[in-house]
This record gives sequence, C-alpha cells and structure tokens, in this order.
Amino acid sequence: MFNSLGNILKLTTFGESHGLGIGGVIDGFPAGVEVDLDAVQKELDRRKPGQSKIVTQRKEPDTVEFFSGIFEGKTTGTSIGFVIKNTNQKSKDYNHNTNVYRPSHADFTYDKKYGIRDYRGGGRSSARETANWVVAGALAKQLIASINIDINAFTSSVGDIFMEKPYQDLDFSKTESNIVRCPDAESAEKMITRIQQIKKEGDTIGGTITCVAQNIPVGLGEPIFNKLHAALGQAMLSINAVKGFEFGSGFCGAKMKGSEHNDIFKADGTTESNLSGGVQGGISNGMDVYFRVAFKPVATIMQNQQTINSEGELTEIHGKGRHDPCVVPRAVPIVEALTALVLADFYLLNRTRKI
Amino acid sequence: MFNSLGNILKLTTFGESHGLGIGGVIDGFPAGVEVDLDAVQKELDRRKPGQSKIVTQRKEPDTVEFFSGIFEGKTTGTSIGFVIKNTNQKSKDYNHNTNVYRPSHADFTYDKKYGIRDYRGGGRSSARETANWVVAGALAKQLIASINIDINAFTSSVGDIFMEKPYQDLDFSKTESNIVRCPDAESAEKMITRIQQIKKEGDTIGGTITCVAQNIPVGLGEPIFNKLHAALGQAMLSINAVKGFEFGSGFCGAKMKGSEHNDIFKADGTTESNLSGGVQGGISNGMDVYFRVAFKPVATIMQNQQTINSEGELTEIHGKGRHDPCVVPRAVPIVEALTALVLADFYLLNRTRKI
Amino acid sequence: MFNSLGNILKLTTFGESHGLGIGGVIDGFPAGVEVDLDAVQKELDRRKPGQSKIVTQRKEPDTVEFFSGIFEGKTTGTSIGFVIKNTNQKSKDYNHNTNVYRPSHADFTYDKKYGIRDYRGGGRSSARETANWVVAGALAKQLIASINIDINAFTSSVGDIFMEKPYQDLDFSKTESNIVRCPDAESAEKMITRIQQIKKEGDTIGGTITCVAQNIPVGLGEPIFNKLHAALGQAMLSINAVKGFEFGSGFCGAKMKGSEHNDIFKADGTTESNLSGGVQGGISNGMDVYFRVAFKPVATIMQNQQTINSEGELTEIHGKGRHDPCVVPRAVPIVEALTALVLADFYLLNRTRKI
Amino acid sequence: MFNSLGNILKLTTFGESHGLGIGGVIDGFPAGVEVDLDAVQKELDRRKPGQSKIVTQRKEPDTVEFFSGIFEGKTTGTSIGFVIKNTNQKSKDYNHNTNVYRPSHADFTYDKKYGIRDYRGGGRSSARETANWVVAGALAKQLIASINIDINAFTSSVGDIFMEKPYQDLDFSKTESNIVRCPDAESAEKMITRIQQIKKEGDTIGGTITCVAQNIPVGLGEPIFNKLHAALGQAMLSINAVKGFEFGSGFCGAKMKGSEHNDIFKADGTTESNLSGGVQGGISNGMDVYFRVAFKPVATIMQNQQTINSEGELTEIHGKGRHDPCVVPRAVPIVEALTALVLADFYLLNRTRKI
Repeated sequence: MFNSLGNILKLTTFGESHGLGIGGVIDGFPAGVEVDLDAVQKELDRRKPGQSKIVTQRKEPDTVEFFSGIFEGKTTGTSIGFVIKNTNQKSKDYNHNTNVYRPSHADFTYDKKYGIRDYRGGGRSSARETANWVVAGALAKQLIASINIDINAFTSSVGDIFMEKPYQDLDFSKTESNIVRCPDAESAEKMITRIQQIKKEGDTIGGTITCVAQNIPVGLGEPIFNKLHAALGQAMLSINAVKGFEFGSGFCGAKMKGSEHNDIFKADGTTESNLSGGVQGGISNGMDVYFRVAFKPVATIMQNQQTINSEGELTEIHGKGRHDPCVVPRAVPIVEALTALVLADFYLLNRTRKI
Repeated sequence: MFNSLGNILKLTTFGESHGLGIGGVIDGFPAGVEVDLDAVQKELDRRKPGQSKIVTQRKEPDTVEFFSGIFEGKTTGTSIGFVIKNTNQKSKDYNHNTNVYRPSHADFTYDKKYGIRDYRGGGRSSARETANWVVAGALAKQLIASINIDINAFTSSVGDIFMEKPYQDLDFSKTESNIVRCPDAESAEKMITRIQQIKKEGDTIGGTITCVAQNIPVGLGEPIFNKLHAALGQAMLSINAVKGFEFGSGFCGAKMKGSEHNDIFKADGTTESNLSGGVQGGISNGMDVYFRVAFKPVATIMQNQQTINSEGELTEIHGKGRHDPCVVPRAVPIVEALTALVLADFYLLNRTRKI
Repeated sequence: MFNSLGNILKLTTFGESHGLGIGGVIDGFPAGVEVDLDAVQKELDRRKPGQSKIVTQRKEPDTVEFFSGIFEGKTTGTSIGFVIKNTNQKSKDYNHNTNVYRPSHADFTYDKKYGIRDYRGGGRSSARETANWVVAGALAKQLIASINIDINAFTSSVGDIFMEKPYQDLDFSKTESNIVRCPDAESAEKMITRIQQIKKEGDTIGGTITCVAQNIPVGLGEPIFNKLHAALGQAMLSINAVKGFEFGSGFCGAKMKGSEHNDIFKADGTTESNLSGGVQGGISNGMDVYFRVAFKPVATIMQNQQTINSEGELTEIHGKGRHDPCVVPRAVPIVEALTALVLADFYLLNRTRKI
Repeated sequence: MFNSLGNILKLTTFGESHGLGIGGVIDGFPAGVEVDLDAVQKELDRRKPGQSKIVTQRKEPDTVEFFSGIFEGKTTGTSIGFVIKNTNQKSKDYNHNTNVYRPSHADFTYDKKYGIRDYRGGGRSSARETANWVVAGALAKQLIASINIDINAFTSSVGDIFMEKPYQDLDFSKTESNIVRCPDAESAEKMITRIQQIKKEGDTIGGTITCVAQNIPVGLGEPIFNKLHAALGQAMLSINAVKGFEFGSGFCGAKMKGSEHNDIFKADGTTESNLSGGVQGGISNGMDVYFRVAFKPVATIMQNQQTINSEGELTEIHGKGRHDPCVVPRAVPIVEALTALVLADFYLLNRTRKI
C-alpha cells in the first residue's frame, strides 16, 4: 500500500540513503526462470552515480546481493530478497539541512506528515530508492524476454532540445553509445552540451524520456481500474521528479479529430497508424506500446535560495553535495525497469483471465 | 485488482451497458457521515446523456438506488451497495457491430483477451461505467467536504481552442453556466461552436480538462508507490479516452531550469509559486493540487471507415447510435469524482501514519 | 479489506437484512465458463429459511438476479454483479431491539465501533449476508468442476450427538436426503430429534460441520501467508457463529507422536494415511482436503435474559422473530460455497507460479 | 499475496534456511513510535534454537540487523527493512534429502508445485522463517503497548499432558521460568519429562498453545471478511505444524445450548462470562481475547521411515540433523508475535472507520 508495486509480481522496498542499505522483496516471481545476475548488475551500473561527466560525481558501487529465491541459477518461486549496501555515505554533506527545508524537495512534507524525518541525504525520498527498482526490473526483463518482449527507453529531450525523429527511425542499440542516452547522435551531442552548460551555471534542467515496448502479446491489461497504460502511468509518476505521462498520441491527441485519430485495421489485425499507443480499452492490441515521461529539473541547485527551517524562520540555502544537473540520463534504466515490472505483472495476471 | 479503485476507501464496480444495470460497492466508507443523496443524483445528472445539444442525444434517466450502508441519513460504516438500472437499451443499434471491430475501440482487444465479448453498446468497455464512479465520487466529496476540501474541474481545451487564463483568474461557480463546462464565457462559446461544427461533419474532437483541488491538508499521499499525484494519474488514466496526465508544471516543467522551477518557501510554509502542483515527494504540501487530463476524440464517427471483423475479413463500418461529438463536457464530473475518491482514500490512509 | 474475500477471484459484498437487498460483485472470474444459473438458485434454496421444521420459519424467496458478467450463458471475464432483494422484512420484529443489546450478538460491538447501527434484523451482522456467499460459491463450484474438484460438507455433530463414522464410509449423495444434512441416516434422526427438543425449550444448540474436498490437483496453496488451510480457516471463521477450525488430524494431532502422525508415501506419490488433511507446507498434495468447523449455539433464544441498553441500563430481553434453533443444517451449503471460492481462487493463482 | 501478512501494517518476508539469510519489510508502521531494539533481540532469543535441552541443539545466533525506518530511536513511518543472516548452515546435513521426500514435510508439494526446490534445510518451508515474524511482532508489541495491550501465550498441552487450570488462575510472569513455557510449574515439569522421554525414543510429540490478549479496546476487527478472530486464525494457521485454531468456547461451544453459552451483560458493558472469547460479530468487545492453537508433532523423526524420491522410487529415510522433539516451547513467542501483528494492524485500521 505504501512501498509496494504490482499485483501478482509485487516489489516491496525499503531503505534510506544513509542507513545500512536499501533493498527489497520481489514476491510472486514465477519458478523456473533462468536468471543472469550479471545482467542485473549491469542494469544497476547504468543507473549508478559517477558514470559520466554529466551526472553526479558521487561514487557508489551499488552492488546487489541476493538473499533468497534463486537456487542453482533459477528462480524457485519463493520471494526474492535483495540488499544494496550503502557504502559512500557522507552524512556531513547534509548536516546543514538538519532542519532546513530544501525548496521543491520532500523535506517539508515528510516532516509535517510524519513529525520526524531522517534528513540525511533525503532519507527515504532520495532517488537512491530507484536502484531497488532497477534490480527488480532487471529480473522482470528476463522473465518477459522469454516471450520476446523488448523494452527500450531513451532521452527524447533535455530542456528545450528535442530529438524530433519518430522512434521508428531510431536504432535503439545506439542508446548506450553516448552518455545522455539519446540514440540520435546529433541530438545527443546538443543535449550533452546543454547539460554541461547548465552544470557550470550551478543550475539544473528538466527533460523527457520516451519508452517503447515491443512484441507485447495481445491481451495484457485489465480493463476498468488496471488498464495497461494506467498502470504504466502510475509507475512512471512514482519516479522522483516526474511531472507528466502521456502514451500514444498523448496531449497531441486532444487536439485531433476522430477521423484523423482512429487507427484503421489491416486484415491481419494490426493497425495502419498507432495513435492508440498499443493499448485499446486498457488492453494491449499487439502494436508497440510507447509513452513519454516528463521530468522536472532537479531541485538541488548550487545557488543561493531563500527558504525556511522547521521553526518557520526564513533562512538561505545553497546546494552542497554531489547532485545531477539533469536526472534524465540516469533515469532511462529506471523507466525501463518499471516498464518491465508492469508488463511482467500483467503477463502473469493475464494467465488467470480465461478458462 | 480488476474492477476496484482505492486502498482503504475502495470502489468495486460491475455492469455492461446492456444488461440489467450497472452498480458498485463502496467499501471502507467511514461511519457517521451525513449524506445528501439528492446531491449524489445531481452529480449523476451532470454526467448523464442528453443534457444538451453538444452531447449524445441518448435519454437515460440514470437513477441511482442505494441498497445498503446508509441508515437514517448517515453512513453506518458497512459497505454501500448501489445500482443504476439500464432503461434505454437499444441493442439493435449495435447489431451491426456483432462481429465487426470498431477502429480504436476495445472490441478487438476484448475479443482477443477473453475469447468472448458482450458486443452490445461496448459492453463493459462502455463509458456508461463512469456513472458508477460519479456516484461513489459524490459520496467521497461529501466525506472530504467535512475537512473543507473543494474540487473543481473544467474544460480547458476543445481541439485547438484553449482557455489560456490561469485557473486563479477563473470563477469556478461559472463552470455550470454553460454546456461545455468552461468557466470562461468567451472560450466556452468558441468551444461550443467548434463542437457543433465537428458534429455536423459527423466527426468528433478531443480536448483537455483541468482540475483544481483546494484546501488539501498537508500530508496526504504515501511516498514511494502511492504518491498522491501517481494515484491521481492512475485514476485519470482509467477514464475512457484519456491519453495523458500532467500535474503542476507538467510537460512544461521538463523544459525549465531548477532556478526557475523551484517553489520558494514563505515564512508560513506556503510557497511563492506552485509549479510543484501542491505535491512534493508524493505528499501534499497544502498548496492547490492541480492537474490536466488529455482526452482523445471519441472513436465512433458518423463516417465510413475501413475495418475488419472477427473472421479477419476487411469490411466497412459507419457509426450509428447516438454518440458524443466531444467527451470532455460530460467528463468534467467524472474527473471530479475520481479526484474525490482518491483524496478521500488518502485522507483516511493518512490517519494511520503517525502514532 | 473489509467486505472482500479472495486474491484473484474476489467476492465483495453489501447488504443489510432490512434495506432494499443484499448482493455482491465477483471480480476475477475467468472468461469462457459456461454457467448454469438454475444450479446457482438451487444452492441458494439449500440455504434459505423456512425449508424445514428444524430451521427458522421465515419465508424469504431469496431470488438472485445477475446484472453483468454473463452473456449468452458464458462468463465474459468482466465483473459479475448480483442482487438478492429483501422481500420479507418484518422490521417490527426488531423494534424492541432498537437500543437493547442482545447478549452474544454484534449489537454492542457495532454500536461502539461505528457509533451508529442499523438495528433491524441485525443489520450487516445478520447471517443473511451468507446468501451472497452461496451465490458466488455456486459459480466457483462450476468453475472448479471443470477440473473435477468435488466438495461435500455435512453435519457431523449437533450438541453432543456425534456422527462417528469416518467420512470415507459415507455416501455423500445422502446428505440432502434428510433435513439436518447428515449423510448417516441413523445419526441424522437423532440430531433432528435433538433440535426439535431444543426448539421446544425455546433454546438453541451448537454443532459441527465436516467438509471434504476431493480431486484437488497437487500444488494449490501459497506457502508462508496464504497456505491453503489457512485461507480455508480464515474463510470458515468468517461464518457467523463459528468458533473453531481444524483440518486433517486437527486438535487430535496435537496429542500424537511423529511416528504415528506422519503420512507414509506410496510409490505413486499418494500417502497411506492422510492425517495431513491433504495439505503439506500449505500446499495441496493431491489427497483429500478435509476439515471440521465448530458452530456455537444461536444467540437468540426464546427465554428471558438480562442485558443492557445503549444507555448502559440493565434490562431484560426475550427473543422474538423467527430464528434457527440450530444453525448447522443451513450452514452446510455456506461451508461448501466458501470452500469453492477459496479453491477456485487458489487454482487461478497457481497458474501464475511457474514459467 | 504470497509472503505478506496484514492490511495496513504489512509484513513481507523472504529467506531460506541456507541462503545468505532471511529478512523482511515491515510496511505501514506508523511514525513516532519509540522502539527498544534490545527488546526485539530478546524476543528473538526466546525463539532461537539451542536454548534448552528440550529443543533442537542447533546453535544459531539469530541476530537481527535493521536497515531502515528507524532513526534516532524512533520509527519514521518509512518501511522497516531487516535481515537475519544465516550463520550455521550445515548443508551437508541435508545432502541425503536432495531428492528424497521426507514424509509429512513440504518437499513433495514444493517440488510438484514449482518444479524446483531448494532442498537444503527445507528451504523456504523451514520454520526458520518464523524468526522474521518474531522480529516484526516484537515491534508490533511495542506499538500496541502504547495503548496497554498485553499478550501472553503459553504451552497448554504436550501430547496428552494438559494444563487444566483456567488462564485466569495463572501468573503469566512464570511462563519464562521454565523451559517448556507453561506458567503452571507442576504441569511444566510433567511436560518437560514427556518431551525428554519422546526425544530419547527418537520420536516427536505435538501440543497446544493458549494465547490471551488483554486490554484490547472495544471495536477492533472488521466484520464480514476481516473478523478479528478470523484474522488471528489465519495467522495462527500460517505457523508451521499448526492443525487447528479455536477461540473462546471453541469446539466445546459446539456442544452447548444458547442459554448456557450466551455472555450476559453487566451494567458496565462487560460480560459475566466470556465464552465469546472477547469477539462478537468479528469485533472486540473489550473482554479478554483468548484462543488455542494445535501443533502436530514435528515430522522429522530419528527413526527409519519408508518414503519415495523424486523419481517415484521407494526408499528409506532416517532423520539426521538437529531437530525439535516438540515444537511448542519455541512456538510460544511466535504465537505472541503474530497476535501482536494482527492486533496492531487492526488498531490502525480501526482509525479509519469512523468520521
């Protein structure tokens, strides 16, 4: 209800950025799946800090340890427990925040909601939590790879620099070939320059990620209150800094006419266009599922800002520590991980829907 | 999992457009709330077909009957069962769809997923289901009215006609003064003209709804996987025809810099700007919660379209029956209803979070 | 959480004995199951009041109406809504209870918990609710009949009259041949005499029901917190008046030695004895699942009893209305219904547990 | 659904007896509770192996490490992650079981259900899992101690040796004064002798535990499908080796007449007798909640038994390793822990039930 995602395949997580570590339990993972734990670690490495000059320079190894649920290289059907130890805690970086509320952070709301707050590194509101999701998502990817589902996310904009090509014209194998994770080299270069510039200003910048899931079988998604796109939206809106979600035609679709927007069937059941984004009535129709996620700029900036402390006194704050100038490059594997978790969950759920 | 929304306050629904009726169970509604059932019916009337010249001309009284959970004008804490009978079923309107898949509808996906489909009126995929949500939402509104929460949704665009004023400049009491439910009279007139024109073309048009929830106490929302905005997003994406959701700065926020986007605190804990949309770290901060929902154009158009039937043969379809040229005006109370359900649920949930 | 049973196959109910009616939503029922609605009504008739001289003489037709989820004789995979109207409400029978707490009833606890109570006929605490369960259970029976699961419950004791034969020696087809629903004619006669005698005294009597589920596939049940027997126990303990549950060797097993209790395997994977009750480690092993449920005597007796009213004043109460002298005969179909719901749910759940 | 217990306060666990360790996530624990972690460890020590001559002689330190959710001695409202490392794994003790199914164990059912099984030490079916419950339960105890709820379980029988005194005549402070955990010294001695004798025979013996929860506020428990006693029953039936559960009058109540069984009210709302076991209509009435749990004898015996292997061949097995001759003494803290978890959960849930 609070720290769990999913219906059948359910991830439950814990951890603050400055305790012993973070981790989680993956419940409902089916038995008999061969798992490649090196591939899990590789996904984690895609997310980790310090990987390039345009992300935070913190160094955290982020090594995952599996405690259970995997035996002789296969899942056993029992819950999979895992832990990622915290190893690079610089609590002193945060001492100045003990009772000062960082603007557009969760400090104020956590304090008011709970009456107590682990202020070190943002505590539970830290994006460090997303490492847990990447671990679980990496296993989910392996599960749905067995039915050939393929998920590719990439940076589609940084600030006002947009990669305008339709995703069909992209070579997803190029996504990892640059540090901003945009498969279009030309756009990538502009984005990287933009992020470096913003970093120099001590500022941060927003962006968007597009995700494309392919080879989805027809029938995933539960109509009414568990529509496939609604579950994806809920998952994406759970990522720190996300402000919007659209799938298929999205907000553009709201300007269109029905005669333009309808996806006309071909004889084989596929459609000529795919403004539906691969989902009709909440259920996948076999076409590509694609969506776009908006990330606001990171709230911690290296500039002076007015704020208040827990006593309600006005004060000033100036970002310290090592923060991302743009969250989007490191969020690409997070978007993929959550997509994999949702799709794997709906794949399992769908097994129960027909006699 | 399939037909339920909510954590503590949970709505579970049933019903197709052409069976005996639709209805639902509201579970977890607290005891002791005085309820005004006329007000519930009034909300239902805001959603009902045939209410104006720009919506479907079907006539359905949509009268709700409460079976349980309310005694002598108060809720008793037991589950509230309700039914809305189907009274204006014209199954013959749909006979031509028996095995023809309407483009961008749920016919194809339901058939493939379940192997069987009640084709009359769209069956379970019909937006008639949303009447259930309006009933439950109307009760939820009364529950949270006890802590003064106020919810106002309105039409903010139809096709390319946008109402550009910030919501702070609007008088929400004017929303019901025109049939398109836009509180700005000038924009409303343009929108109505646009819908009438599109209707004449036998076509349909998309649009957006903006919703503003005010007087929200600080602390609603559960971090990690039940963030307030993620739950609102999941609810909105459950509405038929919705393609996108953004809150606060939304997709615009993705173009901004941190120094522009951060909401600076005032001494009283409120913020100077509210690009956060009233939610920080998934938890309400006491500022207005506002968001925008994108609706695609209605798929049923009064024009010839190529399509296929269940045998995979190419055929043609031409919309019959009585359909909305634009779904947005009737969706305004639906957006409000789901917002009320989410907020009421999180209000109850929050009671358990602190000793 | 409050009015729902099940994981995948979930029943959610509503209704008081004196509102418009009772009913429920069956969610997660798979598509494509041919359903015999007359068979559902027949199960309901087994539970209904007034069916014999040893049960309450209230006359309620208890006719179920299905609103949705079934189309042309088959389930469609959408939620199944149903209603049983209340037709024989004699609220005046209960006027004397308006503010008097009946001993060992739920009047006092409901009032204290909710601060309000529908006192007519016990309101939500009335065993009338169990009619909902019988409807849902009857459909679940039809679902699992497709894999040949067979469920037979019967009265195994009334007061101190015990039917001592092992269930293997019984002919379950005889259960319906007498009004107490004990397949052993000799014991049945004694039980009936005992109930008639107790009724004459204006008193009531307890009893036990034994249930045997056969042809259960190996593998149903989820270890740790959803063990098959724990889910059955939870369901049985939900029935009004139930005080105990034991499966397999039960409380007798607690007196035994391991060398006596262990079920020795035969070469075919079946076991020589079945003290395990068909469940090992929470998972069915293919042997018969059997258990016993204890019912206390009905609390409403036709004798004077001291009690208090809502003002805390001492007063007297004397049962009026038409009540069962022994709840057990009418509870037999209820035990079967809940067993069917649990087994059907676990059957569906098990489909997700292995790749 | 598989490895979680609770509604609001939810424990999700993982771990096999021979992986890196076991652990869990406690979600929904309210913020602001002062926690005594030494007291948690003490509860764990009550459960640990090797503590006396009548339990298994395995030596496992069972030290719990908390990863999150506790800050400066108080809970923060975020999920509490914990781990108990496995330190005394003697996998070789189990090598002989690789593909041999131990009678009345979970080997056969796990293998058939999942197609794969971690055979070392019983894997996930090992009672080692219950250490997780004791950790979570110890924290739950501290939460409900804030409203003075007091929980005391004790051994009430071993084999055919019953402690016959009513619990009201016992001094619960004596429970820990002997190794069998029976507060009646005379019975305790007999029980200990019995267990020693059975151990000498290479056999095992069953028993029962009685649990009494006191100072429960009126109103805990959710009628219909989350009755207080049904949730307690479900929890108890989740413990390894449990075969039965009865509360209040239990199976004895099934022999009684209503005139004997009804609990007559006193003017203060308490009742003269308490055959209801503190629960009426599924809701606590303020009287003591008490119940009894039946444990079968441990299945691993130091004697030759016929069995089969995974190829379906007949073979023989002879228990090795270090096992409990009677599970009951070590299960006392487990019963208390689960009781605390259920009561804490219902306490939180009840906060949402009335406006």
